[in-house]
Amino acid sequence: MDTPTASQIHQFYARQSHLIDSGRAREWADTFTPDGEFHSPTYPEPVIGSAALADFAAGFHRRAAEQGEVHRHVITNVWVRSDEETPFDGAIVEAYLQVLATTVGGSTRVLRMTTLTDHLVVSKGRWSVARREVRRDDSPA
Amino acid sequence: MDTPTASQIHQFYARQSHLIDSGRAREWADTFTPDGEFHSPTYPEPVIGSAALADFAAGFHRRAAEQGEVHRHVITNVWVRSDEETPFDGAIVEAYLQVLATTVGGSTRVLRMTTLTDHLVVSKGRWSVARREVRRDDSPA
Amino acid sequence: MDTPTASQIHQFYARQSHLIDSGRAREWADTFTPDGEFHSPTYPEPVIGSAALADFAAGFHRRAAEQGEVHRHVITNVWVRSDEETPFDGAIVEAYLQVLATTVGGSTRVLRMTTLTDHLVVSKGRWSVARREVRRDDSPA
Repeated sequence: MDTPTASQIHQFYARQSHLIDSGRAREWADTFTPDGEFHSPTYPEPVIGSAALADFAAGFHRRAAEQGEVHRHVITNVWVRSDEETPFDGAIVEAYLQVLATTVGGSTRVLRMTTLTDHLVVSKGRWSVARREVRRDDSPA
Repeated sequence: MDTPTASQIHQFYARQSHLIDSGRAREWADTFTPDGEFHSPTYPEPVIGSAALADFAAGFHRRAAEQGEVHRHVITNVWVRSDEETPFDGAIVEAYLQVLATTVGGSTRVLRMTTLTDHLVVSKGRWSVARREVRRDDSPA
Repeated sequence: MDTPTASQIHQFYARQSHLIDSGRAREWADTFTPDGEFHSPTYPEPVIGSAALADFAAGFHRRAAEQGEVHRHVITNVWVRSDEETPFDGAIVEAYLQVLATTVGGSTRVLRMTTLTDHLVVSKGRWSVARREVRRDDSPA
């Protein structure tokens, strides 16, 4: 994995968080492949495909607003793994994701600390998530 | 926006935070254009121009020290927007900025969660902020 | 310092944190030179050399697990200094390092806020830490 690609991938993650946190649900869904998968213990079932992903993102933003809060996906430690063969034409990325919650008129707290393992592929000429697996630090492994 | 430029911009933000947090107020002010503007709801008025920006940065550092605290500008999710035309020869960047406060001998807390929208231009041969707009997550939009 | 190198160094830090936080102690130690040095006020003595560094990393991970916690090294504001001569063939990097702790079944807190000053060199064909100095924001300077 050469470094210009790593730089593109950093931009990909920065943009993706801004999209979901500002309620641009359709644009967030389009950062996945059309049949992209999102697996997270925070939610009862995997979210699969563009329409379901857009609904999921809209719900994330709406629930925070209903609680009088702003939620942010803070991405750090984006590691584009080049130390292993990928079983597909793309990249495996591991990253840390903190979800921060701020009460309007109040204070900020870390809502949860998670890690991402993403399978990224090039779809429609740009990096896209084919599969995301979220792990929560507060859940037993 | 090609990726080497995105990498330069990441370095720009990393350096800028180190400068203000360590009290190098003049050097922080020089990361803006000579007539650069800083707009934030945390402060009563915009701060405009190198001399005012240097005073502002010195005050930020001095007030934290007077409170027996160390404050840090933690920048994440730096998104160099290439999806829109800029009305100037430069780049629009959106980023997350957490201000963390640590009490000497005590604990660390998130003081505030904010987002930046910056207009960056090349001035004196390097990236500089022409205009910064800060939004606070704890303030109604 | 050209920007491809800065991008490589970002990848270096992302990977390094994943290694220690997931208990890959030997691999973490190998991100230092064979006689690499780790200096931190959190620990009574400097840790020097591959074997001692691997023991240190294993202990970090084991103690967190014994407390029923997951600890994470969140690296931000990675500044590859190009504004000064290095007294060696390498790079000086300053970065912010938050250590976050999550209780299994509980909440997440910032355990400590620190800054790193690293001397990086190329060893065995890749970036490696020759010397790390950690400063804690909660300690008087």
